[in-house]
Amino acid sequence: MNDHLKETTIRTKSIFKGKIIDLEVQDVQLPNGEESKREIIHHPGAVAVISFTNEGKLILVKQYRKALEKAIAEIPAGKLESGEDPLECAKRELEEETGVKAKNWSKLHSFYTSPGFANEIVYVYLAEDLHTGNVNMDEDEFVERVDVTLEEANQMILSEEIHDAKTIYAIQYWQLNQRQGM
Amino acid sequence: MNDHLKETTIRTKSIFKGKIIDLEVQDVQLPNGEESKREIIHHPGAVAVISFTNEGKLILVKQYRKALEKAIAEIPAGKLESGEDPLECAKRELEEETGVKAKNWSKLHSFYTSPGFANEIVYVYLAEDLHTGNVNMDEDEFVERVDVTLEEANQMILSEEIHDAKTIYAIQYWQLNQRQGM
Repeated sequence: MNDHLKETTIRTKSIFKGKIIDLEVQDVQLPNGEESKREIIHHPGAVAVISFTNEGKLILVKQYRKALEKAIAEIPAGKLESGEDPLECAKRELEEETGVKAKNWSKLHSFYTSPGFANEIVYVYLAEDLHTGNVNMDEDEFVERVDVTLEEANQMILSEEIHDAKTIYAIQYWQLNQRQGM
Repeated sequence: MNDHLKETTIRTKSIFKGKIIDLEVQDVQLPNGEESKREIIHHPGAVAVISFTNEGKLILVKQYRKALEKAIAEIPAGKLESGEDPLECAKRELEEETGVKAKNWSKLHSFYTSPGFANEIVYVYLAEDLHTGNVNMDEDEFVERVDVTLEEANQMILSEEIHDAKTIYAIQYWQLNQRQGM
């Protein structure tokens, strides 16, 4: 769709190849024939998991985010390893960060986080029928599990302890679906 | 909060300073005393606007996103100019991209889009009491306005014409608030 909006690559310059992100600058031709530059981050993609305890609390993990210079509470998440299936990644991350395994998994949404400059995509799963795994908790992840009620979650949005798009999305998802007995 | 999770900067190396993003690599000290590296994108921050036509349709704009190599439909959005107030930026972007002005503005949420590697924050506003401005439409923005019903919006999520976090958040917000007469 929308070929009249398309920007065409003229040339690409690689600036940086890192452990997590790569940066390139592209010269592009705009729809009106003029040229412009695009700064683009390549990212392997990520997963995020919405899961609830038997008491109906949402499982979050607190983690220091160096880019923000603060700790925030987020739904469990992590980036894809090379070639990794998103669902397998979601199962791995949930267990590494929370010690929990789930029997039932369903994909809810995928979304790009910052389409203006990055190709990072997040695959969001709902994990149900939880049981304690705890075998594969990652010792090197400095994360702290916290289980919250919907009221607590909304309070944490106000206090900005919850402060990222995927977790606010998850809490809205919770609000939308709690009438169906979640 | 959570000082025991904190990562401390040991040194910072600037890799790239661009028009929109800067990239730096930090050596950090982890809570257990070990060292690690963090790849961090600095971004000026952005705004996004949820607004509805008199017919109750959500106003979206289609735009080619070079990082994704496809056009997607998003709520109107744009990045902050240096020192710009987010609300003023939201008013400017809504008019530049859609030709619409609004009398009533309220801030809904702010959220970080990619806390794992970027400090981009998005301030989301609800714009109400719209009227056609059309004076300041930006000729250099290759965007195409499209107004959608909730049913159309949900269909576009399935077809991935809507495929970014802030717009899926906006559609959830719409679903959560339509019972209050939105």
